[in-house]
Amino acid sequence: MSWLGLAPDDPFGVANLPYGVFVGRDSVPRIGVRVGERVLDLGGLEADGLIAAAGALRAPDLNPLLAGGRALWTAVRRRLVELLTATAEPAGVRDHLGQRADEVRLRLPFAVADYVDFYSSEHHAGNVGRILRPGEPPVRPNWRHLPIGYHGRAGTVVVTGTPIARPSGQRLPPGAGTPTFGPSVRLDIEAEVGFVVGVPSELGTRISTADFTDHVFGVVLVNDWSARDIQAWEYQPLGPFLGKSFATSISGWVVPLDALDRARIPAPVQQPGVLDYLREPDRYSYDIRLEVVWNGTVVSRPPFRELYWTPAQQLAHLTVNGASVRTGDLYASGTVSGPRPDEVGSFLELSQGGTEPVGLAGGATRTFLEDGDVVTIRATAAGPGGAVIGFGEVTGTIRPS
Amino acid sequence: MSWLGLAPDDPFGVANLPYGVFVGRDSVPRIGVRVGERVLDLGGLEADGLIAAAGALRAPDLNPLLAGGRALWTAVRRRLVELLTATAEPAGVRDHLGQRADEVRLRLPFAVADYVDFYSSEHHAGNVGRILRPGEPPVRPNWRHLPIGYHGRAGTVVVTGTPIARPSGQRLPPGAGTPTFGPSVRLDIEAEVGFVVGVPSELGTRISTADFTDHVFGVVLVNDWSARDIQAWEYQPLGPFLGKSFATSISGWVVPLDALDRARIPAPVQQPGVLDYLREPDRYSYDIRLEVVWNGTVVSRPPFRELYWTPAQQLAHLTVNGASVRTGDLYASGTVSGPRPDEVGSFLELSQGGTEPVGLAGGATRTFLEDGDVVTIRATAAGPGGAVIGFGEVTGTIRPS
Repeated sequence: MSWLGLAPDDPFGVANLPYGVFVGRDSVPRIGVRVGERVLDLGGLEADGLIAAAGALRAPDLNPLLAGGRALWTAVRRRLVELLTATAEPAGVRDHLGQRADEVRLRLPFAVADYVDFYSSEHHAGNVGRILRPGEPPVRPNWRHLPIGYHGRAGTVVVTGTPIARPSGQRLPPGAGTPTFGPSVRLDIEAEVGFVVGVPSELGTRISTADFTDHVFGVVLVNDWSARDIQAWEYQPLGPFLGKSFATSISGWVVPLDALDRARIPAPVQQPGVLDYLREPDRYSYDIRLEVVWNGTVVSRPPFRELYWTPAQQLAHLTVNGASVRTGDLYASGTVSGPRPDEVGSFLELSQGGTEPVGLAGGATRTFLEDGDVVTIRATAAGPGGAVIGFGEVTGTIRPS
Repeated sequence: MSWLGLAPDDPFGVANLPYGVFVGRDSVPRIGVRVGERVLDLGGLEADGLIAAAGALRAPDLNPLLAGGRALWTAVRRRLVELLTATAEPAGVRDHLGQRADEVRLRLPFAVADYVDFYSSEHHAGNVGRILRPGEPPVRPNWRHLPIGYHGRAGTVVVTGTPIARPSGQRLPPGAGTPTFGPSVRLDIEAEVGFVVGVPSELGTRISTADFTDHVFGVVLVNDWSARDIQAWEYQPLGPFLGKSFATSISGWVVPLDALDRARIPAPVQQPGVLDYLREPDRYSYDIRLEVVWNGTVVSRPPFRELYWTPAQQLAHLTVNGASVRTGDLYASGTVSGPRPDEVGSFLELSQGGTEPVGLAGGATRTFLEDGDVVTIRATAAGPGGAVIGFGEVTGTIRPS
């Protein structure tokens, strides 16, 4: 349909157009859009007058584009579609498609303001409760009334490909009364979906569930690396801290919400009913299908559609107390786990708390992460007319402590 | 001793020289130092060639100065002392002392990167445990082994004087099974001392306790406003979130560590002994004396010297897992409470969980904050030769929801 000649099911076709920041041959960070196997240099396009965004596309990160709001997002996307779907090739565009996606280095696509992590999968919360607090009700009484969340460390959000050093910290050995210090022996992943805030809000105001798409620009994949032994000893009474703060990886391509319209599906029915500020005039989620790959073996396929709390509810909750959001805020769904054993988003769950080894290709087995292990989370969703929306991947290799 | 003619016990004498960002008659934010009742315009001083800081003093916030590191901090301070203590008045300096501190508006002095809140007062932890979890051990087993902390919301750190809107949220009424929604009815303060990071660290590295003063530039006062009813319902299992995230106020003047050398005192002995990474070759704290003023009545005098965990230990703990720090990171001590009832840093403690009204001037009584209430936290420490180091104040007025 286009001079580009992409296959109809290319995960980076014109129905997708995810944004990122890449560094190519000249070592200058530029905003790009992934198109098939190539990167379209938007900074170059804007410099040449082929697209207009008040300079936002010539920035070294996505923040000015994010801050521009829905009118700018729509205008840029419309123009890109126009350029890329013309039957006759527009002059000058191909000059900015000179680099292959596998030749460039992706950078953190936006400067992260605040990072919040939710806990919105009932299957995950239940699994973790059963493993960590046997004999107690697995999900606490507040869980179905509000999307539980907490603040993570924004400064240690890193882009896909960044090596992950095994963290050291205090752990309480089984049966011991005092902690020891050393490298984590229960290093884990959390497969999540993250939402990127573009348009800020004022301190003292709320964002309603209906205004979700006015503020949120798009979606990244998130691996919220977790040291379960450090976390277990430290987390009472104020929550996770060093067990999580050493690194959180995100994918390099931000898929705009506009690419996910066709992936909208009804969100799970909530029982009991929720308080007014969490009600949604049009309650929907996204059918994003994740895959977790451990040293080359697909070990799990977490389904985002199962999440009990939607991203619109999460944003409404986050701001209901008057807290403001900023351009570059990132909030993640929490670990995505479905009802089946092969749909869980953490190795804590996959290995039943480390008691059931997981088989990988070549006869290897694992409970938690070993040095040198590589974990990749990837995802797709359905686009219009049989198109596939690819999220790329978030990957990391464990380095020794 | 100086052409300035300040009183020897002026809390903003040349032994102090705290940095802030002020907006004066021309509405342009500038870096200034408080000198007596006046503000010395450092941007103007540098523009006129009276001090050299590679432009860091001409910035709209303190971040470039913070990033400059100890060599720059020392050089700037030395030059300021030289200019201000000359017996003969140096030409041109008085031109930049034209504005009174009570005429300018203070801005947030630095862009806050990550905000971490610790929980380092054993008296506070014990008081809160007794009030919120009666019948259980007030302080948990991990508390004496590590400085418990968590991440707060950086984007809602505001400067002194910013009005505080009463937050709304979910609360579980006593005896109820399901939550209701509305304005917090247990709105509280937390009087704390915050440490401002200047020099960043690399991901995957640690900062030792001995390197504290290489990274930390100075100190602010912190009021970590807290909605106890929202917090109580939401905080299990992942810690405080909306009960804290609506606002955290800080003072406008950052007191450099260099001004606090004389205020160093031995920190409390720790029993049991701590793990190696928390040991300090020269264990010290600071004798910072806080005052909490509620509608004009001094209700408490929290003593920072009582804190069990020192700021050097907090920073070492924060980074022991390899988490990096950035210029502008703020970490706060946690609520400062001493052993006596009139030394506590929260109204939860002062009113014994809301059961014992606190008497204010004019016959008023309070348990938690009412609309229109004004809370001011101020502090002093000892300087060299009888000098007093003033921290200014952090103040806020409660606006209706």
